[in-house]
Amino acid sequence: MRLDVAFTPAEVRGAIGKRVVVVIDVLRATTTIVHALVNGARNVLPVAGVDEAVRKADELGRGDVLLCGERDAVKISGFQLGNSPLEFTAERVADKTLVMTTTNGTAAILAASGASAIYVGALVNASAVANRVADSGSDALLLCAGREGEFALEDAICAGRIARRIELRVGALTGNDGLRAAMVMATRAPTSRVLSRTSAGRRIVEIGNGEDIAFCAHEDLYDVVPVLDEQRIRL
Amino acid sequence: MRLDVAFTPAEVRGAIGKRVVVVIDVLRATTTIVHALVNGARNVLPVAGVDEAVRKADELGRGDVLLCGERDAVKISGFQLGNSPLEFTAERVADKTLVMTTTNGTAAILAASGASAIYVGALVNASAVANRVADSGSDALLLCAGREGEFALEDAICAGRIARRIELRVGALTGNDGLRAAMVMATRAPTSRVLSRTSAGRRIVEIGNGEDIAFCAHEDLYDVVPVLDEQRIRL
Repeated sequence: MRLDVAFTPAEVRGAIGKRVVVVIDVLRATTTIVHALVNGARNVLPVAGVDEAVRKADELGRGDVLLCGERDAVKISGFQLGNSPLEFTAERVADKTLVMTTTNGTAAILAASGASAIYVGALVNASAVANRVADSGSDALLLCAGREGEFALEDAICAGRIARRIELRVGALTGNDGLRAAMVMATRAPTSRVLSRTSAGRRIVEIGNGEDIAFCAHEDLYDVVPVLDEQRIRL
Repeated sequence: MRLDVAFTPAEVRGAIGKRVVVVIDVLRATTTIVHALVNGARNVLPVAGVDEAVRKADELGRGDVLLCGERDAVKISGFQLGNSPLEFTAERVADKTLVMTTTNGTAAILAASGASAIYVGALVNASAVANRVADSGSDALLLCAGREGEFALEDAICAGRIARRIELRVGALTGNDGLRAAMVMATRAPTSRVLSRTSAGRRIVEIGNGEDIAFCAHEDLYDVVPVLDEQRIRL
């Protein structure tokens, strides 16, 4: 099979094709989505903008809906939840529909539209996602969200860790230069220390959410694969 | 000092600022520019499009001007030279003005406009460029041309090799996630074998220019730094 890696959504330039796409935003959107669904959220609706999120929540009726998301890592004013996975407890999210907008993660999820399947990947479900891709037998793209259009180290390392697991399952992979680079970066373990020194990690520490980082660094905490289907992400 | 690395021009998004910028397109534009200037070319004028190149050559009078460049790695029809460094012999280029348009390299050079200084870097002049940046004492950006908007491994390795040399001169660097990733990739030597397996390398082999790759992989062949000044690149 062929496995490509894109480090920013801009690299893809609309050429998703009939591939399986795994969207990766380790700090923090995709980690948070995995965790929220494990904690019983009914589904997550990724939307691009704040106004669109509010409209969507109004449409759905606010009762079972939570508005979630960040701008510059901080919870959006008037929203119930931000983008820290630790906020998404079972008490808060069980049976809720989460309407979510984040700077990089949800934008990347939306950029993947047209793919034959869209999975949500992070370090916390790296093996589960790798197995799902390997089982699909399809060509695939690991699409890193990056950070405001720039390369993000934690996403690249996660892509490499997932790629290595896929290669262990299916044998030697062909792919683009991004795949080769991610494989090299994946030789370094994604420790809390490494993640806390990335651009996104430093920002998270700065706003006082440093405890998120150890959580996001926890490989294979969960054996689940969120899937985007008809604009909703579910397990 | 602060040193950032961008893996594609899109990552920069106009935010060049008052930094020194090194443009890197190892396979092959910046390697070719370095080599052509060493072989006596008077200067190189990077232009974005084929029509613009022809107009510029007409303006300058064709006598001392050579039209150079590629599309999809192949010499542009009607141009005197393509983008293979080995074509740019002293016999052909001495005292000539080269009007050059390439898919990635010249586009990246033009994207750097506004910088306090713009240098042309490649593996063939890695140490010379690193020393020039270190001497400047200024914050700097290593701007990889990439390949048609995508990450290119050879440029990332070259950026890392230059960054390591700068760090040896000035001490520990601060920088973006791209710097950290490039440093990791630079632990691998940029051999002909590594370069020939990149996307650009495979294309160059495919069109029968495989001998270019060993040339482009030759670190520190030259101790020169081409500089872009008033739309002309000179030593």
